[in-house]
Amino acid sequence: MPRVIVDVMPKPEILDPQGKAVHGALPRLGFNAVTDVRQGKRFELEVDSADEATLAEVHQLAETLLSNPVIEDYSVRVDA
Amino acid sequence: MPRVIVDVMPKPEILDPQGKAVHGALPRLGFNAVTDVRQGKRFELEVDSADEATLAEVHQLAETLLSNPVIEDYSVRVDA
Repeated sequence: MPRVIVDVMPKPEILDPQGKAVHGALPRLGFNAVTDVRQGKRFELEVDSADEATLAEVHQLAETLLSNPVIEDYSVRVDA
Repeated sequence: MPRVIVDVMPKPEILDPQGKAVHGALPRLGFNAVTDVRQGKRFELEVDSADEATLAEVHQLAETLLSNPVIEDYSVRVDA
């Protein structure tokens, strides 16, 4: 069955406390190669078929249930 | 600056309560095209360069800090 991936990330201008917390822990653990960390959510949706109507429904779902459009951006893609 | 994406998802055999909660809400909201939902985490890591040493460090970081290998799988890819 086809799978649709919805990625939800905080908007760039929005403070990302989870990302900051991870980023702050890196030097203590000896990790120095990463200069910034942002954390979001990933949804894997199984669908019967990845046709236009289904993708339209996924976009609406992403906008209303999976993300908060005031503070988050989302992207939708079909997983081959 | 190059960006490395780390996706962390619950292992298939592990119960995913968040995914189940989202899936359970879909019919009430009129969404019928989605047959299953799994929810995980997405990390966007900014790095100075996406060379081999950095990617090795990101794998170690993903294994030790960003995921729980007992219940989660992770994947690492360079975001073009």
